[in-house]
Order: sequence, then structure tokens, then C-alpha cells
Amino acid sequence: MKEAVRVGDGPTRVQVPGCITAPRGFVAGGVACGIKPQGLDLGMLYCEVPAVSAAVFTQNAFRAAPLVVTEESLVRDGRLQMVVVNSGNANACTGERGLADARRVRRMAAERFGIAEHHVAVASTGVIGVFLPMENLERGIAAVQLTAEAGSGQFATAICTTDTRRKTSQLQLTVDGRTVTIAGAAKGAGMIHPNMATMLVFLTTDAAVERAALTDALRAAVDDSFNMISVDGDTSTNDMVLVMASGLAENRPLSPSHPDWPAFVEGLTEVCVELAKQIARDGEGATHIIEATVEGAADRSMARRVARSIVQSNLVKTAVYGGDANWGRIVMAVGNSGCTVVPDKVRVWLGTVQVVENGMPTVYDEAAATAELAPELVKIRVHLGLGQAQATAWGSDLTEGYIHINGSYRS
Amino acid sequence: MKEAVRVGDGPTRVQVPGCITAPRGFVAGGVACGIKPQGLDLGMLYCEVPAVSAAVFTQNAFRAAPLVVTEESLVRDGRLQMVVVNSGNANACTGERGLADARRVRRMAAERFGIAEHHVAVASTGVIGVFLPMENLERGIAAVQLTAEAGSGQFATAICTTDTRRKTSQLQLTVDGRTVTIAGAAKGAGMIHPNMATMLVFLTTDAAVERAALTDALRAAVDDSFNMISVDGDTSTNDMVLVMASGLAENRPLSPSHPDWPAFVEGLTEVCVELAKQIARDGEGATHIIEATVEGAADRSMARRVARSIVQSNLVKTAVYGGDANWGRIVMAVGNSGCTVVPDKVRVWLGTVQVVENGMPTVYDEAAATAELAPELVKIRVHLGLGQAQATAWGSDLTEGYIHINGSYRS
Repeated sequence: MKEAVRVGDGPTRVQVPGCITAPRGFVAGGVACGIKPQGLDLGMLYCEVPAVSAAVFTQNAFRAAPLVVTEESLVRDGRLQMVVVNSGNANACTGERGLADARRVRRMAAERFGIAEHHVAVASTGVIGVFLPMENLERGIAAVQLTAEAGSGQFATAICTTDTRRKTSQLQLTVDGRTVTIAGAAKGAGMIHPNMATMLVFLTTDAAVERAALTDALRAAVDDSFNMISVDGDTSTNDMVLVMASGLAENRPLSPSHPDWPAFVEGLTEVCVELAKQIARDGEGATHIIEATVEGAADRSMARRVARSIVQSNLVKTAVYGGDANWGRIVMAVGNSGCTVVPDKVRVWLGTVQVVENGMPTVYDEAAATAELAPELVKIRVHLGLGQAQATAWGSDLTEGYIHINGSYRS
Repeated sequence: MKEAVRVGDGPTRVQVPGCITAPRGFVAGGVACGIKPQGLDLGMLYCEVPAVSAAVFTQNAFRAAPLVVTEESLVRDGRLQMVVVNSGNANACTGERGLADARRVRRMAAERFGIAEHHVAVASTGVIGVFLPMENLERGIAAVQLTAEAGSGQFATAICTTDTRRKTSQLQLTVDGRTVTIAGAAKGAGMIHPNMATMLVFLTTDAAVERAALTDALRAAVDDSFNMISVDGDTSTNDMVLVMASGLAENRPLSPSHPDWPAFVEGLTEVCVELAKQIARDGEGATHIIEATVEGAADRSMARRVARSIVQSNLVKTAVYGGDANWGRIVMAVGNSGCTVVPDKVRVWLGTVQVVENGMPTVYDEAAATAELAPELVKIRVHLGLGQAQATAWGSDLTEGYIHINGSYRS
């Protein structure tokens, strides 16, 4: 099954079919092993060589067992050859037994494929406070078939919980004259009691990348994508973003001194932004994506904080849902960012309609402003008039559907 | 008209009728002057002597004109004799003209009552981005009748916008063997386009208090009350808490060296907590107040942050609304506080039912836990197992009613 394809907007980017198995060296698969009542619930991703790898983990103090175990693997030699992901059970708030279970999953996967235990990463999403059903996992790990074609779609599906669609993105660029592919699969915010809004993202590339540089590139990409989305402001115990670089494109290993380094970081960021937007769009009950672009900030940190403040505001989220061109709520969110903005310099646009000039409302056409809230992607632009820095954040709107899913599940 | 009375729980506190005019020296009143389509929309509070006063203002960078002008008054000699409050128009995002208008309101009030301009504070709440209707304000200021009886209720009503009930609290305590009264009136979170969730609080007392000490007492009281509530996490351009101390109780002026100082601070805090809970309860669409008490924190700052993280979580708010005893969302909110909590030490109770021990779910009676979510006041208790500090925060739940009020106003 072909994944949806996308076309990059940079000169070196071309569309590419497939998903996380599009880069050279990767195969994947997924099975249903009964952790969830139905559907695929175990995904595995395998690289034919130990791939240079990096990961970022949740900032939540309650870090679930699989994250601890994956970090244990990564610190050994910074390479991974396999990821095992189950949905339906998060293995969070499970104490010492949860850690032992996660290590046993890692061992089972290593044994089946004859690789080193410390080259295996594990991830889980689903119910918390319940021990992993180890027999199901054992059965699933034994049963998974890894392929380059059907496998990538199975993997992207198996990692989902309440997601209404699977989320994938990929692109190609040229490094040292060779074609390099970057791809990713993600699951987003789906919270049905007692699950939590776990975000899992798995990225693959066949670029050769130096280990420390890959970590830097991942952090930069995550900062501009997953750290700039807001569904409901809550961070799960299980959030993880992981990248594996097989190196099979045989380019000269990428690092900041390589001439193609900026293009690679940009490409990785673009894949992450595309996945982040898909996650925001699939927020529970969401009917719109809000894209807030902040320009004219004194520095990048200010631009990021103001942009995030806008997409995190419940009042902005409900106004977008209600089709209400409420410039006042945007201004308030800008003021609530904690940044020293200068009210008299602030300008605000809804789409192409300017609604605020010098901190005061303009005389705008209400119908035109309201029309800017109709598309699925609602664009808010704010100019702070202080400098040159800019940033973009994305969020879902807030609807009765969110309340229904999260408040009325049992009724 | 008698206000609702309350009984303090400390030994020196007694119930007292009346509202902000209960302390000696204060009179108040309210009129309808057409700023709102209907109802009282101009309130005035007057003290027969220039009262030692203090205020705290919104942290929002867009500070509305009345706050700027009130601060101008306060810095002169730290005394106020009058407060003029209008509802229906916030005089926010109104630039230089807004400032001039606020100063003119101050001057009109000072002239009518023959007091110094810098002894007048002004406050506004309502529509933003629209200039004050000065003729209405002029008419209203000329018409208000100030009394000690009916006036306090009129004032408490005139400051409201979409509040479903007026909010008052008062108590008495003994200072130097004399009876001292502390009282307050508040308006809470009511946001209907293009209004914003302004919180206004006016406190009066007949205690004699040194100016610097009153500022300290107010900050302490606000920190434990209004800074510990969450309706939707947004802070308005117009938020203001103001206290006036007439000194007519003729006690020795209170300061930290006075033996009755702790009782006074506690009393002021109690009045503020009572008003804060009324504001949380009156959150838009709210059906419950969530009271989160955090104990066993390493320090007070940690206790405050964790408690606020719980009442601010949309997932906790929707779970309480849905009657869902979802311990996982509470644990997640604790972990999201940004504090270095130790998961293995965390215990959680819903009312009297312990649902988490050492960071893992207990075997609890689901029906008993669910029953703890039925009362209007839902109590969540978290023990962090790290120290002795504690704090309490309050929030409203999140319901379809909130979405309806904030998202669908125009439909």
C-alpha cells in the first residue's frame, strides 16, 4: 500500500513514495496481538545495520518505563537497529515491574532478530497503571513479518491509539550528489480514559550523519515542530521522538561543517513540521488547525513564546471554532506570553485581513475577517514591531467534541 | 439589602452583615447609565478619609488605561478616597485617547466629591477596543447616591458583566482589642465577545495599616487566593485587586512587628480565598470547583506550582466534569508542573479515597472514587513525599457550556 506523498518546496526536494521504509536499509511491520480489543497493536522497525540514532523524551517528571529503557540502550554506543512499539498499554506508572517488563520486551526482540539488546529501543502508548500483557507481546514479536512495502503502513497504523488517521511524511534531498531520503511516522493526541495524549514519532534516514550532529539536528527539528504544537497543553509520560540514520546513502558523514548540513537539517525539520501539523489537525474533536506566525520579535525566543501563547489560549481556540474574528483574544494571548511586547507596536492579521494596528483595532470588514476562519487551516499573523525574529506554532481548535471525548467517555 | 454572611473559622472571627461598606468609613453606590444595554454599570466606593491603599495589577503586557491611571494616583501619596468602576466597556486597546478618557473619569469623580484627583482610582471591564462613552459616564457619576446600606450591594452588582451572581465576602477580627472588619467585592471571569475575562476585586478595611505593610499583606493574600485559581488560564488586560484601609478602627497601625499582624494577614487572605472560590465557581459553564491541595512538597514554590498545574489541566477539568475518577490525568498534571517531583513517592486522593500510592494506582473502589466527584466542590489531594510545604489551588471544570459561551456566541 502506497503512503500519501508530499512535495518539498526546496529545490533539492522531490516527492517520494513509501514511509519510514523509504530510506535505504529499513524494513517494518505490524501485527495484532490482542493488547487492544482490535486492530494492529505491535509495530517493529528494523535497520539492516546498527544506525546512528538520537532521541528526545518527554519533559514530564513521570517518565514511563520504555523511555528509561530506550535511553539505557542509546547511551551504550549511540546506535539502534530496531524499535519495538506497542499501542494499547503505556507501561507507565508501573514501577520496577514496568522497567523489568520493558527490558524483557527489548530482550525478546533482540533474540528474535539476533541483534544486540542495546541496539533495541522500546516505546509504548495506551492505558497507564496496568502491567504489560507480556504473553501478547511475546506472541506479537514472534509473529511480526518485516517488509519494505506493506510493513511501513502496518507500522504507522500499529502505533496509533485513538488517532483518526495515520500520520506519515517523507522527502528526498541531495547530499554529496547522492539522493538521501528522510521519512517519519507519528501518533498523536488521543486520550480516552485512562489513556493519555502520548506523542510518538519515529524518523528514518539513509543519510550518513555523525552522532553528535544527529542529536543537534533532531533537537533543532523538534524545537520548530513538535515543541510548537498545542492540542491541550498536557504532556504525556510517554512522549518520544526518535531518529535512526542508516548511512546507506554513503554520503560523507554529515556534520555542521558539511556544505549540505543546512539542507539536511531543513529537510528533517520539514518532515517533523508536516507530522506536527497532522498531529494538531487530529487533536480530539478538532475542526481546524490554527497556524500562528509571529514576526518582528526582538529574538527567536520571544517569537516562539508569543506564537505558542496564541495557539495555547483556550479563548483563541474557542473563537476559531466558533468562527469569531475576535482580535481581542489574540491581543490578550500576545500579552500573556510573558514577553515584554510593546502594545503600541503590535499588528495582527487574520489571514490577509489586518485587524489590529498599533495595538488598536483597525476598521476592517467583519465579513472578510470572519471568512478567514472558514478554511481548515486558519492563519493568524502577528507583527511585534521590535526586530527581525520570527516563529510559527500550530494548534487545534477547542470544541464540544473535545469535552465529549474527554469528559463524557463513561456516559 | 443584606449580603450573605459567612463565619470565619479562627477564634477571633465573627460573622458580619454587609459587604464593602461594613468597615467604618465606607459608603458605596451604583447606577445604570447606559454603558451596558441594561442593568447597573457604574459603581462608586467612597471613604470619608483618604485611606491607606495598595493594588496589584495584571501581568498581561497589554495593561489597560484605567490601570495605568490608578497606578498614577497611587504613587502620589499611597492613599485613595474613591474608586470609580464601570462595566460594559474595558477601555483597553484604546491608546492615548483611552488614557485621556480614564483621567477625565478620575477628574469628574474628584470634582463631584471635592477630593484630590490623585485620591481617585478608576477601573473598567467589558468590551475592548472601543472608546469609553464619556457622556454616559458623566451622567452616571453625577447620579450615583452613596450609602452604607443599599450602596454596597449596588456596587457589587454594578461591577459585574457576565457573572451569574455577585461575589462578596467579609469577616471581623480583633486588633489591639478593637473590632476590625475586612470586606471585599469581586467580579470574575465572564467572556462574551469581544469582552475578556477581567477579574476586579475591591477590598476595604477599617484597620489602621502602615502603607508598606498593606502592600505586603495584599501580595501575600493575592498569592494564596487569586493567583491560585484557574478558569481558563488567560489573564485579562484589566485585572486589578485593590485594598483601602480607612484606619477608623483606631488600632495601633499594623505592620509585621505588631502582635496582631499575622491575624490580619490571615483575615485578608481568608476574604480573598473566599472571593477567589466564588470566581472559580462562576467560571463560564462550570459545574464544579476543583480544590487541589498539595502536601509534602520540598518548598512552598513547588507546592504552588504542582497545585496550579492540576487545576489548570484541561484533561483534569474535563475528567471532573465527566465524573471520571481518572488518577492518571492527575499524575500527568503533577509531572507536567516543571518541578522535580519523585514519581515513586507520589500519593493521590480523590476526596477520602486514595487512588495512587508510590506513583502507582492502588486497588480502590471505583464507585467510591467516582462518588467523590459528585459534590460541587471536588477535592483532590496530592502528597509528594519530599518535605513539609503545602498549597491549595482552585479551578472550574471544563464543560460544553464553556465552549458554547466562548465559541458559539454569534451563532
